[in-house]
Amino acid sequence: MPVYSISHVENVRVCVVMVGLPARGKSLISQKIVRYLSWLSIKSKCFNVGNYRRQIATMPIEVDAKFFDPNNEEGLKYRQQAIDLAIDDMMRWFSDEQGVVGILDATNSTRARRETILKLCRENYIEPMFLESFCDDQDLVLQNILDVKTTSPDYVSKPQDYAMKDFLQRIEYYNQIYEPMDAVTDSELTFIKLVNVNSQIILNRIESYLESRIVYYVMNLHIKPRCIWLSRHGESEFNVTGQIGGDSNLSTRGWRYAKKLPELVLKSLGPDAQHTNLTVWTSTLKRTQQTASFLPYKKKLQWKALDELDAGECDGMTYEEIEQKFPEDFKARDDDKYEYRYRGGESYRDIVIRLEPIIMELERQENILIITHQAVLRCLYAYFMNVPQHESPWMSIPLHTLIKLEPRAYSTLVSRIKADIPAVSTYKEKGTSQLGESVEGMSSKSRDLISASAES
Amino acid sequence: MPVYSISHVENVRVCVVMVGLPARGKSLISQKIVRYLSWLSIKSKCFNVGNYRRQIATMPIEVDAKFFDPNNEEGLKYRQQAIDLAIDDMMRWFSDEQGVVGILDATNSTRARRETILKLCRENYIEPMFLESFCDDQDLVLQNILDVKTTSPDYVSKPQDYAMKDFLQRIEYYNQIYEPMDAVTDSELTFIKLVNVNSQIILNRIESYLESRIVYYVMNLHIKPRCIWLSRHGESEFNVTGQIGGDSNLSTRGWRYAKKLPELVLKSLGPDAQHTNLTVWTSTLKRTQQTASFLPYKKKLQWKALDELDAGECDGMTYEEIEQKFPEDFKARDDDKYEYRYRGGESYRDIVIRLEPIIMELERQENILIITHQAVLRCLYAYFMNVPQHESPWMSIPLHTLIKLEPRAYSTLVSRIKADIPAVSTYKEKGTSQLGESVEGMSSKSRDLISASAES
Repeated sequence: MPVYSISHVENVRVCVVMVGLPARGKSLISQKIVRYLSWLSIKSKCFNVGNYRRQIATMPIEVDAKFFDPNNEEGLKYRQQAIDLAIDDMMRWFSDEQGVVGILDATNSTRARRETILKLCRENYIEPMFLESFCDDQDLVLQNILDVKTTSPDYVSKPQDYAMKDFLQRIEYYNQIYEPMDAVTDSELTFIKLVNVNSQIILNRIESYLESRIVYYVMNLHIKPRCIWLSRHGESEFNVTGQIGGDSNLSTRGWRYAKKLPELVLKSLGPDAQHTNLTVWTSTLKRTQQTASFLPYKKKLQWKALDELDAGECDGMTYEEIEQKFPEDFKARDDDKYEYRYRGGESYRDIVIRLEPIIMELERQENILIITHQAVLRCLYAYFMNVPQHESPWMSIPLHTLIKLEPRAYSTLVSRIKADIPAVSTYKEKGTSQLGESVEGMSSKSRDLISASAES
Repeated sequence: MPVYSISHVENVRVCVVMVGLPARGKSLISQKIVRYLSWLSIKSKCFNVGNYRRQIATMPIEVDAKFFDPNNEEGLKYRQQAIDLAIDDMMRWFSDEQGVVGILDATNSTRARRETILKLCRENYIEPMFLESFCDDQDLVLQNILDVKTTSPDYVSKPQDYAMKDFLQRIEYYNQIYEPMDAVTDSELTFIKLVNVNSQIILNRIESYLESRIVYYVMNLHIKPRCIWLSRHGESEFNVTGQIGGDSNLSTRGWRYAKKLPELVLKSLGPDAQHTNLTVWTSTLKRTQQTASFLPYKKKLQWKALDELDAGECDGMTYEEIEQKFPEDFKARDDDKYEYRYRGGESYRDIVIRLEPIIMELERQENILIITHQAVLRCLYAYFMNVPQHESPWMSIPLHTLIKLEPRAYSTLVSRIKADIPAVSTYKEKGTSQLGESVEGMSSKSRDLISASAES
């Protein structure tokens, strides 16, 4: 009997069919849903019809706005080919790769198109859920075009002015045939309609658990610019002695980091430092609160869900002691660190489950600085940077380093600010019970990992 | 710095203003929200205008349908008095008792009325959130009137036929002036509109975290009849030796309970036994899975969130050992058992936080049988039976007893089916480290508690 998290109750497959004019944030929403579900171990994938269109190598015509004129028969032919390719791929993925949530990212702007997809889903026992992003706030649309579309692969080496004008014309062509989802006409369908981001949301026949999770996630998204800072606590007394877990105090060097942290945060804020409203989250353990104690921000919250991975019977032991006392466990953990659950304690998978409400709250909030622990920080980082599960427990997140994340439309910018205060390494390579000699001594492999994921 | 659960991020007060014709389930939804939020330690209270009306002792006129005729001036006068009383009480409760979520349970069927409440809330820095239950499915309405309204205090000692007819006339009077919430006209307000239970939901300007929690809870409610069964695991080896925590096997008597459990469940199902589709949930600990091992139901899920309260450093000890080794902790736990967190372990409050997704999933599901542990079962039971926090950790939930809960409109029916297989008592009274001699030896006080709460 496998262990179920809240995410695996039903045996349901869902196809999220995006609906909406271009530049309504459909791809952004699609990619966020995929990242969120993947982090929760729910196999999901996005099928972007624009990408399939760009892959039709034999296409002899130029893709400017006129390509999208509903009266352009040649354009129509290639666009049909693109959506067919996307749907074929998605159906193959559902059947051959046991996909659970597939997202069809296209405008799907007519009822006829949506009917076809609906029929296909039902024939394949896949639940179709339509997700429309409707936006009549012209400022939002223009901002989106500027932020994203003028740098689209469709406009490589074109001036921005041209791209903007051409894209607006493309939207206009789509608008001629657009049939928005409607609470009455489409009352038999399962759908979410977001109006102007999420100032109004219509939910229709949302039934399965998976659908309701996706709805709740999408409901909580916002597009205001903000940053998230992540830091481990300063070096602790247990870090110095190589013991895991516990609730020890900071070491002398850990206290130095705590004192320096306000300066690091200010530096990372740049010129807006004085005006930034920032909330500090810590775990319930002393070492994170001590690390936060010199920060000048009034709002500080403690979360039990941010506590370090519970090592159960191994709490307070060194890796060498664990290797000696429980050699089989030690090996099992190295073999599958994500799934391995300490005797009477937790696995990385357990942490992800308890962090889920934290992620939801992070999506809702603006500027947050989180001071937490190695394993928890790895899981949070994996969410933002889309790091695969089997890699995340092996990422190196050194002590005395502040990480700043700036979520952008299709990526998250990462910067790391080092405090230049020495600390032991708590990084254990696979197959050894020895820790690295210092932060600088960490393997290049683990270092590569973190930079690679930063670009994903 | 107090510990924050996911429920205490903002300093926000919300007034949920119910909207809708009579017999649309407004009171049911109100009471469920209050029960859910109270269980999460969010201070909330329902103010039902009908109850205030019935308390106007001086009212000289009969309350039949004509009382609700919008042209009946005397009726209007008393109805205005009732709503004024309810609002006054609610505002006093917000200011004097630090209320967080107040629910104004009335029809609030005109825009003029809603405007007045809106203004009053804003003057008092309380966020107004309208929650409309709109229902044009006449079968649903008639069923609701039969289930609930014909037994209303307004129809004491009246025949059911009369009550039904009179109530339909009352609805008709309200319908004459009813102005439903509208996505366009009310686009500036924060509101949820439920159409025919939750086949369609409109969310408008849901912004604060508290509002979004209430929305998600309401989204997941259903009104299909179902039962929930709760049982502790059979007696374990640790139970016999008086040790807490651990992951021990069942004792011989525990295995006897496991073997008898299928029969107890069948008996509790009555004549529908063959047709009942039932899912079994256990924790990840051996003793719950062993207890479930003879149940013939195919769908069995393991949840880490159902694991027993983590006793941290005290895991595996007896209460006597804890009293000797940590006398101050032992006393602190007796003084405030809900808040006390074991060294390196959990408190009852911590359990409630990790059970929240389980409760949400339970609301969504139909027939579920849960086999779990003493502290976890107390918390689940407290949710369904509305048991106050300071009482729930002291409830007696004996071993070898199946509890069946049948949620009804305004209460939950409880039946307890004893297996008649002896087991040790694991009930510890306040102020002693001794356990009761046997199940039958539990104090009458603790027994009273469970029966009293069953009627709440």
